[in-house]
Amino acid sequence: MMEYNQITEKDLAEIATFMDRERLLFGKEINEEYSHDELASVRTYPTLVARVTSTEEVSKLMAYANKHHIAVTPRGAGTGLVGASVAVEQGIMIDTTLMNHILELDDKNLTLTVEPGVLLMELKSYVEEQGFYYPPDPGEKSATIGGNISTNAGGMTAVKYGVTRDYVRALEVVLADGTIMQLGGKVVKNSSGYDLKDMIIGSEGTLAFVTKAVLKLLPLPKKNVTLLVPFPTLEQAIGTVPLIIQAKSVPTAIEFMEREVILDAEEYLGRKFPDNQADAYLLLKFDGNTMEEIASYYDETAQICLDQGAIDILIADTEERSLPVWKTRGAFLEAIKSSTSMMDEVDVVVPRSQVNEFVEFVHELRKEIGIRIKSFGHAGDGNLHVYILKDDLPDKKWEKLLSIAMERMYAKAHELRGQVSGEHGIGLVKRPYLQESLPETSLVLMRGIKKAFDPNNILNPHKVCQA
Amino acid sequence: MMEYNQITEKDLAEIATFMDRERLLFGKEINEEYSHDELASVRTYPTLVARVTSTEEVSKLMAYANKHHIAVTPRGAGTGLVGASVAVEQGIMIDTTLMNHILELDDKNLTLTVEPGVLLMELKSYVEEQGFYYPPDPGEKSATIGGNISTNAGGMTAVKYGVTRDYVRALEVVLADGTIMQLGGKVVKNSSGYDLKDMIIGSEGTLAFVTKAVLKLLPLPKKNVTLLVPFPTLEQAIGTVPLIIQAKSVPTAIEFMEREVILDAEEYLGRKFPDNQADAYLLLKFDGNTMEEIASYYDETAQICLDQGAIDILIADTEERSLPVWKTRGAFLEAIKSSTSMMDEVDVVVPRSQVNEFVEFVHELRKEIGIRIKSFGHAGDGNLHVYILKDDLPDKKWEKLLSIAMERMYAKAHELRGQVSGEHGIGLVKRPYLQESLPETSLVLMRGIKKAFDPNNILNPHKVCQA
Repeated sequence: MMEYNQITEKDLAEIATFMDRERLLFGKEINEEYSHDELASVRTYPTLVARVTSTEEVSKLMAYANKHHIAVTPRGAGTGLVGASVAVEQGIMIDTTLMNHILELDDKNLTLTVEPGVLLMELKSYVEEQGFYYPPDPGEKSATIGGNISTNAGGMTAVKYGVTRDYVRALEVVLADGTIMQLGGKVVKNSSGYDLKDMIIGSEGTLAFVTKAVLKLLPLPKKNVTLLVPFPTLEQAIGTVPLIIQAKSVPTAIEFMEREVILDAEEYLGRKFPDNQADAYLLLKFDGNTMEEIASYYDETAQICLDQGAIDILIADTEERSLPVWKTRGAFLEAIKSSTSMMDEVDVVVPRSQVNEFVEFVHELRKEIGIRIKSFGHAGDGNLHVYILKDDLPDKKWEKLLSIAMERMYAKAHELRGQVSGEHGIGLVKRPYLQESLPETSLVLMRGIKKAFDPNNILNPHKVCQA
Repeated sequence: MMEYNQITEKDLAEIATFMDRERLLFGKEINEEYSHDELASVRTYPTLVARVTSTEEVSKLMAYANKHHIAVTPRGAGTGLVGASVAVEQGIMIDTTLMNHILELDDKNLTLTVEPGVLLMELKSYVEEQGFYYPPDPGEKSATIGGNISTNAGGMTAVKYGVTRDYVRALEVVLADGTIMQLGGKVVKNSSGYDLKDMIIGSEGTLAFVTKAVLKLLPLPKKNVTLLVPFPTLEQAIGTVPLIIQAKSVPTAIEFMEREVILDAEEYLGRKFPDNQADAYLLLKFDGNTMEEIASYYDETAQICLDQGAIDILIADTEERSLPVWKTRGAFLEAIKSSTSMMDEVDVVVPRSQVNEFVEFVHELRKEIGIRIKSFGHAGDGNLHVYILKDDLPDKKWEKLLSIAMERMYAKAHELRGQVSGEHGIGLVKRPYLQESLPETSLVLMRGIKKAFDPNNILNPHKVCQA
């Protein structure tokens, strides 16, 4: 492969003709945070960070990079976990965080038009103030919506409402050569040629650069209730989930958690969880327009849980009671991270009916290879978050055990007909596992698609499917 | 472009070594129905029809066709409207209607695995008998599910439940070279590389041949209620829709219909509609688990309709009352078809807020150019079905007026930021309009994707994006 060119003083001067110099960070001006994401151990500095404020700037940057064969890496808030936003070929990093405007709330078509740098938490609270609802709910609320689209982020509400992909009506993207393109529209249906929009969603910045998104909104459900259900064993807790799903009342979220992770979070937050006596818990949320409607849902679910051996049903039907519970759940990743020196993660998704088998496998694995592994996850949608912890292991041993643990878990997920990533994406660090899990034909097709979009391979090289 | 080879007696003999001769129709054995679809005026016979019964047969046929450069056209029940299943380069037509087995209902993962030739009506009634629900609801229930996937069929329930794409969890496909590939899985989330599954959905048999699908099911809502709402004018009826959408109670379906189409359907069915006195109607459906829950929804909606000038609210809360209403709605296409000598259709989708402007434009257009045009459609999702009728116009004049009408309507849809097809697809006959509506860059990308999947261009040539 042809080597990439780097940004020189001359390039900088040229780029500064169409972008304010103060929004261009060059060489030593580049802050350390631009060299890594939230978790992946790989670290590289780009040679230029461009803090863009418009689609036109992105277009000009891409055209320049394409012409001069300079690698381009998109970056939002840098909250990714798989190295997708690390500039491994240096070059230009395009930072979207200044493109953070909410452009339009269209209450007739129920759509919200945003720039890619809007933070998920801002987006959600903005629409909720107007009585609307943007359902996707990844744990990391300080991620940008552009990042969410690029990884097809999922989150806790997928069981009832689906994932980011299901809420993207249209995209404005910039292609590798600088062409600005509109995909989709404010339309509810579309059978007009190949689905380029869905090809961009989840492609982690390797096919095009997202500069605008039109998102689908729902009316905001007026009420919600949280149920915390302690079980004697994790197996019973998880085994109850398919029965809940089969019933007529689909919860908004079904999370599972083990006592040890709750204790970590209590320590991390310095605050008690409502209950920490049981070995395992299901945490459920129901939404609807009246308390009566919701009660009819959760009554049925509570009965199913009790029939399956639940110890108790704790109901939080006010914001005051439910918020601390969800805040604790939201702190799991940070709590686990702060309990160890270094960690890596597995984000597999398996069919819902196989969650128990996978979790049991992980329990056996940690006993067998003698490494700390913690997990929690979305029992309702089969997406598990498993964290392998270094603690005080020497580097060499850690690398060896980590590699064994990862290989074994991905092989197990594959055996259970699962997929490598439920929502975090592939980026740089999961690429070997994606390549193992897919037949060569799939990879050849993906690379053919990459070539159609980005013939000079300047867009986020080495990520997802390309060596 | 290299010319395609045709099937000779020698090819037939070779193909008959891996497929029963009696399921191969050759030359004169080919019935007239294989030469056309439901509406498109183009007619061509394939030289061989292969009535496949397994993925392996499809694989062997495709490998053979790819090696010998023979065009392959997939065909389900032939209910398409845009010529997508017409074998314009003759060659092999692969008929899926014998691959009509329901393979598995997985009640733990809420999925149904089917072969592509299963008819939509069989699929829907099968799952409903088991207490599950497959929401997509195109008018043509005798279409195959393979055809529904290939066009990303929509239907009336899109306003609440989405379209076919939203219910496809996994696909088994055969690539042009015969390779069998699995895409997706029984998983609820997936961020594992490019979204090849969604690229196949809606690609009208031009990228790969669908041989199996895993569909997402929902629990079956226990009750439903239909509201028929007469309005003094169509403008008032359609203008009410955004207000209904903004309210908290999303209907399952919102259809609009004009008096003249209802009269056509009454005559065609020989049965009276509950009301035919008003100029325009909204037809709404609500579903839920209890009549109380549904009543709370439709009370709010009924009040909105009355506030907007509705003449009355007719409620059908039993199967007995609602079925005839929906049967009449379901007969619109056939009723219009039987009222004229020949017709063509426009299936544009516009943002919901623009439906009124488009419908008014069509009314003006028919006055202006003096041709009968009838329309009805999915007010809830902005997808309009407009039929241009030949009646006793001489051929030349018909072709001229049809062409003017089509051009004008597609231009108007484009102006309103709509799309060429909401659910019927592009096939052969809408290709010029797709090409006009999309920038050249989009078409270049689509052709690049086509090349990655089907380098020898044997799969359904001349359809969707390729000349």
